[in-house]
Amino acid sequence: MHEVFLQQAIDLAVNNAKTGAGGPYGAVITKDNCILAASSNQVTRANDPTAHAEIMAIRLACQKLSNFQLRRCILYSSCEPCPMCLGAIYWARLEKVYFACDRHDAAAANFDDSFIYNEIALPPSERHITMLQISLPDAMRPFTDWTKNSNKEPY
Amino acid sequence: MHEVFLQQAIDLAVNNAKTGAGGPYGAVITKDNCILAASSNQVTRANDPTAHAEIMAIRLACQKLSNFQLRRCILYSSCEPCPMCLGAIYWARLEKVYFACDRHDAAAANFDDSFIYNEIALPPSERHITMLQISLPDAMRPFTDWTKNSNKEPY
Repeated sequence: MHEVFLQQAIDLAVNNAKTGAGGPYGAVITKDNCILAASSNQVTRANDPTAHAEIMAIRLACQKLSNFQLRRCILYSSCEPCPMCLGAIYWARLEKVYFACDRHDAAAANFDDSFIYNEIALPPSERHITMLQISLPDAMRPFTDWTKNSNKEPY
Repeated sequence: MHEVFLQQAIDLAVNNAKTGAGGPYGAVITKDNCILAASSNQVTRANDPTAHAEIMAIRLACQKLSNFQLRRCILYSSCEPCPMCLGAIYWARLEKVYFACDRHDAAAANFDDSFIYNEIALPPSERHITMLQISLPDAMRPFTDWTKNSNKEPY
């Protein structure tokens, strides 16, 4: 069964690659062996750098379940998720991920996945995109107000 | 100037934290010292686990510029971006990032940022969310078809 769903993710990726409709990536999300959502990469078509196939599929599946979590769901991706998508997988609480190609295959096709994985390991101020912490008196207020608020919806 | 924009990101975060409209995070994106986009966290309100403040601001700024890249733009975030948002920052080609709190402050407020940073460093099969590579004959086809396609739009 896992091979069948993963093949569908690859088919979506191949279709994008051939038509140029978007990046060569596809993703499928299932629950109890039924497909909840599927998408190809939509970055260039949607002018949205976050519209990777996995992110699109997560958003669609969440809309379908009217929930911001995807517990007991499985993601099938034509390629190992990049750090952005990996983060999204954790925030969505997916159960498991299957993928076909890996970050090195993506790098060979000129995608930045492997580069970004390397950047993440560096201290923020030493990355290619410099990330600097500025100390402001109010910095902790969001978290202290959040902790005090008994009406919040944790996620 | 950086302090002013960062304070605006904090103000968005505080408003969310107080009202419970979403997670205690805010982000602002500028170009040439003008605000292009701003957003608070929308995860629970939009049923979208990817709707972090930074991701929302990136999406909005890209729509405004009709472009999937944000070169020469600066992101101000109330907190150090999580791995998902960090990945999005790289894909969007932002120039620089300023933040107020860091991942340890987020962890103290029960957010998973620090946990996900640790998970990323592990081999995929050893993570809390298991990620397994399945070898399929078509695995490389998306990338080979993409490389051959002269009409593609690289990103």
